[in-house]
Amino acid sequence: MAIRETPISEIDQAATKAHEAFLTYRFAKSAIKISFLNSIADTIEKQKEALSAIASKETSLPHERLIGEVNRTVNQLRQFAEFLKDSSWVRPIINRADPERKPLPKPDLRQMQIPLGPVAVFGASNFPFAYSVCGGDTVSALAAGCTVVYKANPGHPETSAAVAKIIIETAKQIGVPEGVFAMIQGVSTETGMHLVMHPLIKAVGFTGSFKGGRALYDACAKRDEPIPVYAEMGSTNPVFILPEILAQKGGEIARALAASNTASAGQFCTNPGIMVAQEAGEIKNFYDEFAKVIRATPSAPMLTKPIYNSFEKSMKAISGKKEINIAAVADDNKNENAHAHMFISSGENFLNDKELWEEMFGPSSIQVRAKTRYEMMKIAASLQGQLTATVWGTDNDLKSNIELVRLLELKAGRLIINGVPTGVEVTAAMNHGGPYPATTDSKFTSVGTQAIYRFTRPVCYQNFPEFLLPDELI
Amino acid sequence: MAIRETPISEIDQAATKAHEAFLTYRFAKSAIKISFLNSIADTIEKQKEALSAIASKETSLPHERLIGEVNRTVNQLRQFAEFLKDSSWVRPIINRADPERKPLPKPDLRQMQIPLGPVAVFGASNFPFAYSVCGGDTVSALAAGCTVVYKANPGHPETSAAVAKIIIETAKQIGVPEGVFAMIQGVSTETGMHLVMHPLIKAVGFTGSFKGGRALYDACAKRDEPIPVYAEMGSTNPVFILPEILAQKGGEIARALAASNTASAGQFCTNPGIMVAQEAGEIKNFYDEFAKVIRATPSAPMLTKPIYNSFEKSMKAISGKKEINIAAVADDNKNENAHAHMFISSGENFLNDKELWEEMFGPSSIQVRAKTRYEMMKIAASLQGQLTATVWGTDNDLKSNIELVRLLELKAGRLIINGVPTGVEVTAAMNHGGPYPATTDSKFTSVGTQAIYRFTRPVCYQNFPEFLLPDELI
Repeated sequence: MAIRETPISEIDQAATKAHEAFLTYRFAKSAIKISFLNSIADTIEKQKEALSAIASKETSLPHERLIGEVNRTVNQLRQFAEFLKDSSWVRPIINRADPERKPLPKPDLRQMQIPLGPVAVFGASNFPFAYSVCGGDTVSALAAGCTVVYKANPGHPETSAAVAKIIIETAKQIGVPEGVFAMIQGVSTETGMHLVMHPLIKAVGFTGSFKGGRALYDACAKRDEPIPVYAEMGSTNPVFILPEILAQKGGEIARALAASNTASAGQFCTNPGIMVAQEAGEIKNFYDEFAKVIRATPSAPMLTKPIYNSFEKSMKAISGKKEINIAAVADDNKNENAHAHMFISSGENFLNDKELWEEMFGPSSIQVRAKTRYEMMKIAASLQGQLTATVWGTDNDLKSNIELVRLLELKAGRLIINGVPTGVEVTAAMNHGGPYPATTDSKFTSVGTQAIYRFTRPVCYQNFPEFLLPDELI
Repeated sequence: MAIRETPISEIDQAATKAHEAFLTYRFAKSAIKISFLNSIADTIEKQKEALSAIASKETSLPHERLIGEVNRTVNQLRQFAEFLKDSSWVRPIINRADPERKPLPKPDLRQMQIPLGPVAVFGASNFPFAYSVCGGDTVSALAAGCTVVYKANPGHPETSAAVAKIIIETAKQIGVPEGVFAMIQGVSTETGMHLVMHPLIKAVGFTGSFKGGRALYDACAKRDEPIPVYAEMGSTNPVFILPEILAQKGGEIARALAASNTASAGQFCTNPGIMVAQEAGEIKNFYDEFAKVIRATPSAPMLTKPIYNSFEKSMKAISGKKEINIAAVADDNKNENAHAHMFISSGENFLNDKELWEEMFGPSSIQVRAKTRYEMMKIAASLQGQLTATVWGTDNDLKSNIELVRLLELKAGRLIINGVPTGVEVTAAMNHGGPYPATTDSKFTSVGTQAIYRFTRPVCYQNFPEFLLPDELI
């Protein structure tokens, strides 16, 4: 499908309409928002097969994987609908007056969260449903009472159009104001940039590359009125495998991690790209098992041509380094398909070569052999901000490496013990975020119900008569 | 007192020490932090008279006003200590595992807030205690488990040194790590700038001018790793007086607002600088009563020479405008003292002259006569972001002007009915913040216990054995 470049005038119009719609939608009762979100969920669920078929054609992702993603998207909508049922989501705080207080009477003060305003959302290429048109950013913004102008990801225009149509038609049926959601399209950087620079846009949600996220952040920081940019930009999701567990079940761990590393052609933001283990006899078994999976992984088409090109470029660059051992490459030989790679580096070389610290989006990993426990700590300390960090260890291992876990806490938004980082659970306790450069704002998650607070701010009501107070504060 | 310019090498050292201290202080048990904050409070309270005497000499603020401010500072410390007693302040969220879930088992996920890291704090000139060395920024950061490098305000160096000494000595007594708090000084912009650009600094708290706040924001946005800047930069705190209440008790309202406008030589961030009333017979009585207070207000020295110069410059500029009516000026005639001013502008002129929208820090106000209710709404709609907005009205007034209140909600962090904006209550429901340019981050308050969340971020713990979990999540 050829991608139409939304003209500047239409972007301005969408922002203006989003602002106008916001002025009424922000007062929408919870019941209306709940019905809006649930109705979108129902329709998406009904069209599940058709939507997945379109997306599969556009993204090369397998139909089954996409059905799973649609289910996740539907669940997410319903979770936010459920979340709104309890009005305490607005974080009400009530401090009643004390007219007798000396020297001055104490006023009545009540605080709650209100929506920020129209939000610009940029969807991801790797999740055509769950992080796209009706993904976590859009849904948390709509749940908060914000309106949304969505910039479609050029990787799946037809899927985007189909989902946008569902949102817009549902809005009409439910009777929420026109302009509550609009979609713009384009491949030019200016299209998205014009949107976020529009003075009526009050926040930005983004999932994508470091380059794209940082460019949006920089632009928005330079606005007359700076606005928050929640950019989720990627991560190498380091994994540390401690000695005792490596000896006890290195093979099993290798298979779990290799599966996580190669699923969906490695195109997950939480893909484990760096694995650190301490040099020991047992490391060979771990590497052998890992390599076996890599070699046997069928090559697969990637989401888009540019993503494939970038992956190929990384593979060539890393393969060309003389300090790097190419431990395994997927066996089959199909052009234009991503072939899984496994590299091995010494700890020392890893510490010296910052190129190895970068995310390589796709099915590849760097296995780092640390000489000593001290070197392992040094590697952990050298890490940049991450979405996740994982540690594998027996209780003994963990007890003697508590400092490693505590150090990783400073580096990541989510810590996992004896598991894989892929498979981001959509739930209240999830934190899909982390210190820069994983995101531009480590204070918020983009997955789970807490994501709503990216799009709200507190207001305090002082000495308000009851008839003027929001319902949530009475 | 001559102000020493802290050399760059010492700033670097303070940041490094703050980082090192953070690595242990972040694990300090609540009991330690509570004892730390309460002990600082006790010592400040004991030295109340002496501290106020130093500050009075440096800031020209009356001793009694400063005693009140010290009390407030002490209460604030004790409030945060109290706040830490209930461990739910870390916002724990626990979603337990479900190993039976299909198609995949559900992991155990637990989330809580952890401290961000070393924080740079810039104190205000107008509150030598409550927004300075041991003010809300420092105390909320220390309560969160962050360490602090404080840049002293050049307006009160001796006061700053005395309070810094109390914090540092208390830290020693309690046994919290050296480096948990350090103070740097200087009048050069580079001194503060070097501090916020230090890679180990993870957040900034600031109270001061728009120019200063925006410069810090811009610098931090350009860092390799951008960090949040919480700058509270000022506000004109508009007040709207509706017709029925104006007729019923215009004189009383005028006296209350004029007192709020001139207290402490008008040097409050919540000083009501713009008052809008609708043209009517009763407006004369309101203006007359307001003018009476202004004329009778004794002139007063301001905090610093630059603040006085800036106030004088504004007064000359506004007085020179031919569309502006100088309704009253304080009667006495003391050089180098601020004289209260009251200006009157038509609604139309106000809408056209953006200079009148700017904060004039000091005892002055612009009274805006709106021709119609529609013009009053237009004025409200034209406002920039504010810390506060106030509406005076009878129940009838308010019921027929609900749209005005709802519109102001989009403009301010705190809305007040039938009161004055000065006198910021230190309590959980307070929001001292607001849309840009009142602050650089409308999502957070700088007063009250919620201020702690400026200096924390969420972390999610997945499948952690109990012995590895933070106490708050067990």
